[in-house]
Amino acid sequence: MPHSSAGPEIERLITLMARLPGLGPRSARRAALHLLRKKEQLMVPLGEALGEAARQIKPCSECGNIDVNDPCAICAAPGRDQQRICVVEQVGDLWALERAGAYRGRYHVLGGVLSALDGVRPEDLHIGKLVERAADDGICEVILALNANVYGQTTSHYIHDVLKDCAVQITSIARGVPVGGELDYLDDGTLTAALKARKLL
Amino acid sequence: MPHSSAGPEIERLITLMARLPGLGPRSARRAALHLLRKKEQLMVPLGEALGEAARQIKPCSECGNIDVNDPCAICAAPGRDQQRICVVEQVGDLWALERAGAYRGRYHVLGGVLSALDGVRPEDLHIGKLVERAADDGICEVILALNANVYGQTTSHYIHDVLKDCAVQITSIARGVPVGGELDYLDDGTLTAALKARKLL
Repeated sequence: MPHSSAGPEIERLITLMARLPGLGPRSARRAALHLLRKKEQLMVPLGEALGEAARQIKPCSECGNIDVNDPCAICAAPGRDQQRICVVEQVGDLWALERAGAYRGRYHVLGGVLSALDGVRPEDLHIGKLVERAADDGICEVILALNANVYGQTTSHYIHDVLKDCAVQITSIARGVPVGGELDYLDDGTLTAALKARKLL
Repeated sequence: MPHSSAGPEIERLITLMARLPGLGPRSARRAALHLLRKKEQLMVPLGEALGEAARQIKPCSECGNIDVNDPCAICAAPGRDQQRICVVEQVGDLWALERAGAYRGRYHVLGGVLSALDGVRPEDLHIGKLVERAADDGICEVILALNANVYGQTTSHYIHDVLKDCAVQITSIARGVPVGGELDYLDDGTLTAALKARKLL
């Protein structure tokens, strides 16, 4: 059934919009109508921004981050700690850590996690390049910052294994009670992890 | 604070995406990353579809619908009932009625509803053109299909007033229990309206 009554141009736009995460057919229709109402202020600039970003943004051949330059701005920054590599699953995780502003080293984006269910094998991730980078004399620490679920843990273990011959320290970000978290609302796994990792005050 | 660490092209894309209804800053970031992962299959086609639709789609000077042609496909269709005009607030409402497939006449899109709060006055809506169309000898009925809220009702009353000198029947779509609706879950206003409008079986 067609989404609209305005011809194939709009149908195509709505179909493409509905493929964005967070938008279904109904919200894609609403978004398309909103765009058509704001043609000059939003629709035309968004079309251009998409084309521009698609043309200019590329993956960094060093770390897998995305940027207009290769190597990316983070790999190229002379002021950043060159001895540490923080391993993340996706570019979005790198952005989250950068927004937090707590890390000043470099990154390595795996591009996913190992998953037998989804058929993601080690050779599908950028693990080879990570081993190559970790073997460099200048690197002293590899920090694993993968998601705290079963896929992230499996992948962390796998990376720990393949890096064990490199002369680097392998660490993992801490598990515990999130800032502002109330014990009553936290799951058992988090509470167990927080108790196990307790520290002397 | 920047959304990402990938330069101004991505920042601009995320800022524009976040202005779509249904997307906030966080989901706009996710959508931008999804687009960058599906560059050829989604990002480039979507950019082109936006530009194409922005260039080709225009409002129908007769009814206010949007289409690549003026008059629009509905106004131009010879097979549709030329004696009835269904008045709706927005193009999305017209699409909804067309999807339902229960109406085969023509439409009139007001482009909004009267609202003292938002400063929408009669001259801001396409009411003048509606009066002009309703004055045509060929029109026998104007159906008001505005939303069932206070703004829709105010606007319905106003249109009823300005059309009272035209020789047309003015009707409004029915209020009542929606199909599949359970009385226990309906609000008092709907139940009252459904009772008042009860019909002999």
